[in-house]
Amino acid sequence: MNTMVSLPPWIILDPLLQSWLREDIGHGDRTTQGLNLHHPGHADWIVKEAGVVAGLPIAGRIFSCLDPQIVFDSLVEDGNWVEPGQVIARISGPIAALLTGERVALNLVMRLSGISSLTRAYVNKIAKLPTKFVDTRKTTPGLRILEKYASKIGGAINHRLGLDDAVMLKDNHIQAAGGIALAVSQLRENIPYPLTIEVETSQLIQIEEAIACGADIIMLDNMELSFIPKAIALIRANSKQIKIEASGNITLETIHSVAKTGVDYISSSAPVTQSKWLDISMRME
Amino acid sequence: MNTMVSLPPWIILDPLLQSWLREDIGHGDRTTQGLNLHHPGHADWIVKEAGVVAGLPIAGRIFSCLDPQIVFDSLVEDGNWVEPGQVIARISGPIAALLTGERVALNLVMRLSGISSLTRAYVNKIAKLPTKFVDTRKTTPGLRILEKYASKIGGAINHRLGLDDAVMLKDNHIQAAGGIALAVSQLRENIPYPLTIEVETSQLIQIEEAIACGADIIMLDNMELSFIPKAIALIRANSKQIKIEASGNITLETIHSVAKTGVDYISSSAPVTQSKWLDISMRME
Amino acid sequence: MNTMVSLPPWIILDPLLQSWLREDIGHGDRTTQGLNLHHPGHADWIVKEAGVVAGLPIAGRIFSCLDPQIVFDSLVEDGNWVEPGQVIARISGPIAALLTGERVALNLVMRLSGISSLTRAYVNKIAKLPTKFVDTRKTTPGLRILEKYASKIGGAINHRLGLDDAVMLKDNHIQAAGGIALAVSQLRENIPYPLTIEVETSQLIQIEEAIACGADIIMLDNMELSFIPKAIALIRANSKQIKIEASGNITLETIHSVAKTGVDYISSSAPVTQSKWLDISMRME
Amino acid sequence: MNTMVSLPPWIILDPLLQSWLREDIGHGDRTTQGLNLHHPGHADWIVKEAGVVAGLPIAGRIFSCLDPQIVFDSLVEDGNWVEPGQVIARISGPIAALLTGERVALNLVMRLSGISSLTRAYVNKIAKLPTKFVDTRKTTPGLRILEKYASKIGGAINHRLGLDDAVMLKDNHIQAAGGIALAVSQLRENIPYPLTIEVETSQLIQIEEAIACGADIIMLDNMELSFIPKAIALIRANSKQIKIEASGNITLETIHSVAKTGVDYISSSAPVTQSKWLDISMRME
Amino acid sequence: MNTMVSLPPWIILDPLLQSWLREDIGHGDRTTQGLNLHHPGHADWIVKEAGVVAGLPIAGRIFSCLDPQIVFDSLVEDGNWVEPGQVIARISGPIAALLTGERVALNLVMRLSGISSLTRAYVNKIAKLPTKFVDTRKTTPGLRILEKYASKIGGAINHRLGLDDAVMLKDNHIQAAGGIALAVSQLRENIPYPLTIEVETSQLIQIEEAIACGADIIMLDNMELSFIPKAIALIRANSKQIKIEASGNITLETIHSVAKTGVDYISSSAPVTQSKWLDISMRME
Amino acid sequence: MNTMVSLPPWIILDPLLQSWLREDIGHGDRTTQGLNLHHPGHADWIVKEAGVVAGLPIAGRIFSCLDPQIVFDSLVEDGNWVEPGQVIARISGPIAALLTGERVALNLVMRLSGISSLTRAYVNKIAKLPTKFVDTRKTTPGLRILEKYASKIGGAINHRLGLDDAVMLKDNHIQAAGGIALAVSQLRENIPYPLTIEVETSQLIQIEEAIACGADIIMLDNMELSFIPKAIALIRANSKQIKIEASGNITLETIHSVAKTGVDYISSSAPVTQSKWLDISMRME
Repeated sequence: MNTMVSLPPWIILDPLLQSWLREDIGHGDRTTQGLNLHHPGHADWIVKEAGVVAGLPIAGRIFSCLDPQIVFDSLVEDGNWVEPGQVIARISGPIAALLTGERVALNLVMRLSGISSLTRAYVNKIAKLPTKFVDTRKTTPGLRILEKYASKIGGAINHRLGLDDAVMLKDNHIQAAGGIALAVSQLRENIPYPLTIEVETSQLIQIEEAIACGADIIMLDNMELSFIPKAIALIRANSKQIKIEASGNITLETIHSVAKTGVDYISSSAPVTQSKWLDISMRME
Repeated sequence: MNTMVSLPPWIILDPLLQSWLREDIGHGDRTTQGLNLHHPGHADWIVKEAGVVAGLPIAGRIFSCLDPQIVFDSLVEDGNWVEPGQVIARISGPIAALLTGERVALNLVMRLSGISSLTRAYVNKIAKLPTKFVDTRKTTPGLRILEKYASKIGGAINHRLGLDDAVMLKDNHIQAAGGIALAVSQLRENIPYPLTIEVETSQLIQIEEAIACGADIIMLDNMELSFIPKAIALIRANSKQIKIEASGNITLETIHSVAKTGVDYISSSAPVTQSKWLDISMRME
Repeated sequence: MNTMVSLPPWIILDPLLQSWLREDIGHGDRTTQGLNLHHPGHADWIVKEAGVVAGLPIAGRIFSCLDPQIVFDSLVEDGNWVEPGQVIARISGPIAALLTGERVALNLVMRLSGISSLTRAYVNKIAKLPTKFVDTRKTTPGLRILEKYASKIGGAINHRLGLDDAVMLKDNHIQAAGGIALAVSQLRENIPYPLTIEVETSQLIQIEEAIACGADIIMLDNMELSFIPKAIALIRANSKQIKIEASGNITLETIHSVAKTGVDYISSSAPVTQSKWLDISMRME
Repeated sequence: MNTMVSLPPWIILDPLLQSWLREDIGHGDRTTQGLNLHHPGHADWIVKEAGVVAGLPIAGRIFSCLDPQIVFDSLVEDGNWVEPGQVIARISGPIAALLTGERVALNLVMRLSGISSLTRAYVNKIAKLPTKFVDTRKTTPGLRILEKYASKIGGAINHRLGLDDAVMLKDNHIQAAGGIALAVSQLRENIPYPLTIEVETSQLIQIEEAIACGADIIMLDNMELSFIPKAIALIRANSKQIKIEASGNITLETIHSVAKTGVDYISSSAPVTQSKWLDISMRME
Repeated sequence: MNTMVSLPPWIILDPLLQSWLREDIGHGDRTTQGLNLHHPGHADWIVKEAGVVAGLPIAGRIFSCLDPQIVFDSLVEDGNWVEPGQVIARISGPIAALLTGERVALNLVMRLSGISSLTRAYVNKIAKLPTKFVDTRKTTPGLRILEKYASKIGGAINHRLGLDDAVMLKDNHIQAAGGIALAVSQLRENIPYPLTIEVETSQLIQIEEAIACGADIIMLDNMELSFIPKAIALIRANSKQIKIEASGNITLETIHSVAKTGVDYISSSAPVTQSKWLDISMRME
Repeated sequence: MNTMVSLPPWIILDPLLQSWLREDIGHGDRTTQGLNLHHPGHADWIVKEAGVVAGLPIAGRIFSCLDPQIVFDSLVEDGNWVEPGQVIARISGPIAALLTGERVALNLVMRLSGISSLTRAYVNKIAKLPTKFVDTRKTTPGLRILEKYASKIGGAINHRLGLDDAVMLKDNHIQAAGGIALAVSQLRENIPYPLTIEVETSQLIQIEEAIACGADIIMLDNMELSFIPKAIALIRANSKQIKIEASGNITLETIHSVAKTGVDYISSSAPVTQSKWLDISMRME
């Protein structure tokens, strides 16, 4: 577990959290408003299955956005492995707010913990190898920053956060631009100069072209396992700096073999697109 | 498949779609802006695995929000079963916009189609029984309306859209309010009168109390299969109108047995919390 | 007076309150900024005419949004009957903020109190009968939740808060859908299942159709007083559960007669569309 | 009727109109979505009582925001006097949008027409005198610009639109600033120089002070009718430019007498705070 | 220095400040988040060149929006003259927030201080004359209120804050309306009555027309220095109240001569459009 | 001139443009609304001084946001050198919209053109050398993307767009993190892997440390001209890939000498912080 993961400032996340509360409450919480509950109470969050928790500080902030009187005490830290039955948080405050905020906060943490749990499984498979596991831009619309956070909590390194922090030349771009060399030279004139250029390749000739025009990262896209070592050899014969990323249909079964080829990074959307929510429930005291 | 499912007016969804594009683009799409692509092009969306498609009209709107010149032609309708390799949409317009919008639009449709596909599996299990399959409020923050839409596309009936369109008295509420009878009578004075009151029960005595105070819906929460018929009998002995919902740990294996007990509704969050994204990719022509 | 009425969480209302302050202040409060007033002060709110006060907690929140140092002490509770000359609130804090926020806060409370006062008049007319007085969706754009709140403070029960929390089949819908039976059966397949369906009727044949297809609520729209008992009899002969609502041109003069027919609910927009603002003014100490 | 009244650009009003539609639709229009109505239709707007119509262009824009295919044809112009039974607008387009937008659009026009109708009554009382009728900042929160528009449509001249476009020195300000002279001299140093300063007065000594320090407008606040001519004489003896405004408890009965004293302006919030909504309904064809 | 300048309430400015932080942070502050800095620290703001400081309270608020734990102590007041090397503020709090907020806060204060410094230079040139120096609507989009504030801090009087708080009849308007007299008479019927009307003139005949129709302010636009006294004479022969403003290509060299002609106001956009940012930097302790 | 510069999609910029129009219009454009101008007209934009134009497509969009009927024809392209008196755009449409939008559109283009003009001057000084001129994060709050665009239009290469698209280790960060090596190694674990790390250095020992830990970019901050060649030699002796950036007090006088040392990039905020607005005015036909 990476204990160094930090969230962006709340000013970046608050509009999201507030919009989620508004989405669920709508015209009002008919049940708790209708019962007019005002006394204080407390509640426990209990995990129902083993996994890696992610999102507790955000859950706390969601409750604070709803009612600043709520105190949210995390009993574990994001990234911790938890077991069924384990209490991961104690929440106290006005009972109406506890009940109104419960679903939104749990939905988020269950989703994020699902991602961090499956990420951890992938990361563990290659833990003894130098290869790093990275995520992708396949994330739920509106949750990019937080799913990327969950990914890091699971042990991955993030790939691009958006279309703006690195260049990724895919098939479609290369075709549209008239070839890798042309595309890269044009990009160097146009993009912020600290940005790196990654080129997606699936054949040796593309790799050669990418090397020749000074790509910063070369992605081996859906390449056969047996072919990857040749690609790596070709790249390393020319440059030690170019980062090599393998991508495409990586599974828990295949990741170790791919990593053993010596690629620097293996990217996969699986922890986001294939994970289930980690089951967590709230119990009022 | 329900061919009657309609989306809310775009004025409700547009702020979401726009925020998703802004999330991904950030300061700008370095790749397509950097290549300065202006010519027109077209692209196909191809499914990679079998399932039920959901979200195509929304994908079309996402592209329109990005560039009104884009034409998005769906080749199937939401709710259709699709097979691997099938082309489900043809998109044409300025190539830069096609590439900039690709990921956001696909992310949404892959997520929604995953939900509708698993929903369909549940629905099919009880297709010959009168019991209806319903969803829950366990949805991804920010995607409530659209995940509920996908659920309907899959063949489910929606449960509450939010905390505001029905009352759900859970354990926690009942405890806080001092009992079912007290809670219901107080709610009747306070909630909009067309709203229904659902009471969560796990014991016969609670069911009796719920019947006595005029609950509209009685949820049998996590009840043992063998116990459900007694619950139904108790309710039906008193009322034909009360709707009976079974909930809690329903699986593809158990749903048929539960439905055979004669409950009116079976609710499950599984299609939302347990589904994987349906794999779809875009191929430029 | 219903002492149980509670407001939705501030996270729902704050955007409204803030937008109202911004509407009035615009580029700046030329008078108080120009005078550069910084010392503390206090002020009283005095009612000028008798009525039912509504909105004091919201007024307090408006001042807090403007300046968190302001203390707003309500001397009466929402729903209280007040007499001319009565001081209903004491406000203290930076004098500039008191003066800048005065108009927005008063405008809201005067409007809401006007509604609750006229609502009370209607409610009092039928206080000894079991019939309940309910409001409608005729509310000032942007003030739906708060005018509904004022309505409850006045003693009414709310009807629908929006188009999303119940179905109302009006003439126009029925016509467009091809009849009541067709419309209702189609709706049952499409709407969240806890939602109720109300059918607007003006003739016995429509009532029969509504009963037959299982409407939850039947509205007798603009029916002649002498005709209502027949409608009730027809409905009750078939069902005890169906709720009966009378609507259309109800006045303070006619409401008692209508209620005596035994309808469950009488709905009227009069307290919103016919009420005058309750006069309240602020006096600095 | 003033045929010259124009609305601010839509970019100013659109956020309001959109927020009102979102307020009413919430999670979705259960009725029209549930009926899945797609065919076109048309509808008439019919007034039920005599009055002055205001807001038709805004109603048209509301429908356009909901569905750009809707065509809204006004049969009268804002400011026209209409009689019961008169058709004032014909609307055609997708029937679902007609039904979804009906309530929001009508609510606005009924409210605004109520204001313009009562304004017209006040204006007519002094039509043959040079005195102008002006409005106040007592307007419904969120509706300032539109209620001011309705006021002009009724024949009034607007007073301040907000706290930012003129200075109004009220009792409370004067007290806080330490007197009229001090306040005005300080304001002249601090406010944008084209802004005018209005001083509220209730005694001759205050009027003298206001004249002495160069007030642009002197308001005679709640002054006895018999006293007003003395105030006017005092002012006119010193200046022809100072504008004189009478304010406070002006009624339809008293306005003519007040105007006859020769004040330049009479301000009243009555058309906003005392008016009822003009009854208008929609009939589908 | 004008010690009376006050900012509008934070509720007006906060959305701006928040949007600026979000603009710079985007998906996250990679550097400070990546370093995971949590300990407290403090920093000094040091000016690198002489000038007039403006914006310190706003800088403090920017840091508070980012992290409420930050304490921002201004060592000088807005409007003070500062010398190179002078420490103008001490900031303490979580070091991550200090570093994340630094650039946005400094950018604002450097820009505003540049404006107030050049404004001061203009104001000083005419300090012994009764003529006032005023600004214009040439301001950076999005910064109107704050650049106007900086202008006042520099010693200017503000002109219009927007298109809504006074009328300015320019060439283009007069032409479109068919002459000054026609335009003014029509405006008097249409604008809020406390608003003043300024007419832009460049010839004696226009001035005569403006006087005749009762303009409140006459602007002498780009008039030759030798011609201005004639214009003033013409106006003063008719009215003492009309305010006279000279405008157009005023420079530090010419302003004194123009002021000596006796115009009431000289307007110039130079402090906004011609000023450089005042250099300020942050030094961590 | 770089003819390849493209703007981000309008969905990114529109909220800014709209907010600027709303800022200026406020409650309404008193002048053009008051004159009730409806007929069409056209106008020319004329530059008053020589320079490089930037922002015309954005100006066109501003007018479209205000009124879709407006047609904005650019007669030059962004990046073109223009001479005094040159007409750069012809605008036609409803005259009211032309007059209402004039100031906002001009303010933006004047500001951006000022930046691109001064950028061009810097770029021209080193046009024959391989060194590239880059901008900084010193930009007007709210205008980052557009000032960066103007910078490119002037011929610069952009540096970081925000805190999120590259790491910049400044003095303050290094100090807080406990040295360059520690900071970089920690960052490599935490940041998205395609992001580059730039290290600010002012001494040889820091450069050595930066080289040793694999910095992607080394900034020579405020280094004496005579010292720069030593720094370059040290870096190049170790790596050909590391990009070398000179920064700090670069002027039009010194830039050529600095570039001749062979640094890859020279960064300066001068075109943003030291430029004046390019004078442009609108003339109605």
